[in-house]
Amino acid sequence: MQNNYIGSISIDSVIFGFEEDQLKVLLIKRNIDKDTDTWGLPGGYVNFDEDIDHAAERVLEERTGVKVYMKQFGAFGKVNRVPEERYITIAYYALVKPGSYKLKRTKDDCDVSWVNVYNLPKLLYDHNTIIEFALDNLRQRIRTEPIGFNLLPQRFPLLSLQRLYEVILNTSFDKPNFRSKILKMKLLIKLEEKQKGVAYRSAHLFKFDKERYEALIEKGFSFEL
Amino acid sequence: MQNNYIGSISIDSVIFGFEEDQLKVLLIKRNIDKDTDTWGLPGGYVNFDEDIDHAAERVLEERTGVKVYMKQFGAFGKVNRVPEERYITIAYYALVKPGSYKLKRTKDDCDVSWVNVYNLPKLLYDHNTIIEFALDNLRQRIRTEPIGFNLLPQRFPLLSLQRLYEVILNTSFDKPNFRSKILKMKLLIKLEEKQKGVAYRSAHLFKFDKERYEALIEKGFSFEL
Repeated sequence: MQNNYIGSISIDSVIFGFEEDQLKVLLIKRNIDKDTDTWGLPGGYVNFDEDIDHAAERVLEERTGVKVYMKQFGAFGKVNRVPEERYITIAYYALVKPGSYKLKRTKDDCDVSWVNVYNLPKLLYDHNTIIEFALDNLRQRIRTEPIGFNLLPQRFPLLSLQRLYEVILNTSFDKPNFRSKILKMKLLIKLEEKQKGVAYRSAHLFKFDKERYEALIEKGFSFEL
Repeated sequence: MQNNYIGSISIDSVIFGFEEDQLKVLLIKRNIDKDTDTWGLPGGYVNFDEDIDHAAERVLEERTGVKVYMKQFGAFGKVNRVPEERYITIAYYALVKPGSYKLKRTKDDCDVSWVNVYNLPKLLYDHNTIIEFALDNLRQRIRTEPIGFNLLPQRFPLLSLQRLYEVILNTSFDKPNFRSKILKMKLLIKLEEKQKGVAYRSAHLFKFDKERYEALIEKGFSFEL
């Protein structure tokens, strides 16, 4: 660690990716951990002359190539979270489409990958716990803010939206029930267009009502699923 | 600052108090600030050998006499938040009944008081901003968790609950509308007993349905006001 960094403080980022009906998280493996085969969250340090939010984005981009706005969700500071050292880490998260980013890695790391969040190995330090907290935070947010909708294509069948909610909440919904609840929000516009290339019954496509979407973000909403 | 503390890290606590239909916050004034008449949040440092959550509770109790479980809501780390020094602070908050605590102060401080949150002076550093964030967090939580109800007496008229929500959300509700929404939650049990010592029409008293309350905390709820 160089002198340019604030001591005892680190940043860790939990980048969730929704892809092929799976919820993934972006992990790295350091060269130093090659033998132990240990994955961890992309993290780093804060410069004396930079705001923590900026440090978080810089560190993430440097180590993974992903540049995205993140939300801070807490600091983790148990005494023994890092063996033989005392680090308090400030944690950030975001939800993205993995396909939108070209991953890169630094020479300190031997791997950067998207890993299924429901099938994680034991990670470095308290990183499994940090991911659990990030996931709780994300789940609370999708119930009260229309987030995640930007992960779908512009026109989509309702079932795609249901799958997005199901994988984030790690549950399954009754189709007609989900359909009626989501339509009650009046956030979607039903298109004349139908799904193409489907063998059996093709479903109507929907798009978001941008104006109503903006209004809901402004006002806050609550979405009982 | 002694060597026993982790450098560059501080803790600040936002203790909200609901009393006489007012929302207050617990502030202290340091001796050093006597001339400048500047109030600030009760804060302090983290020992190398203590978890941050523990440090937060210890610091608060040492400086104000208030011992309460707090929720962490974020770290604040803009470069210039503390003039000529670089401190990242981790912030916690709680909502209490001021009457339940006997305030005390250390020799470093000349005052410890409850101050109306809607009539704050300019505080130390970024403490006004930290309180804004805590308030946003509290407002989100009272819409999705049945918190704050423990601030009322065991039996209360509905209007008391309405006032609690109104002062936290800094708004006013239509009485019949609030009444119907709150009763729809089925969280309250209507008692035969009526308000005493009221000049005009005395209102029915209510109490919480503890079982349902526990179930709602478990499941999470959403309360559209």
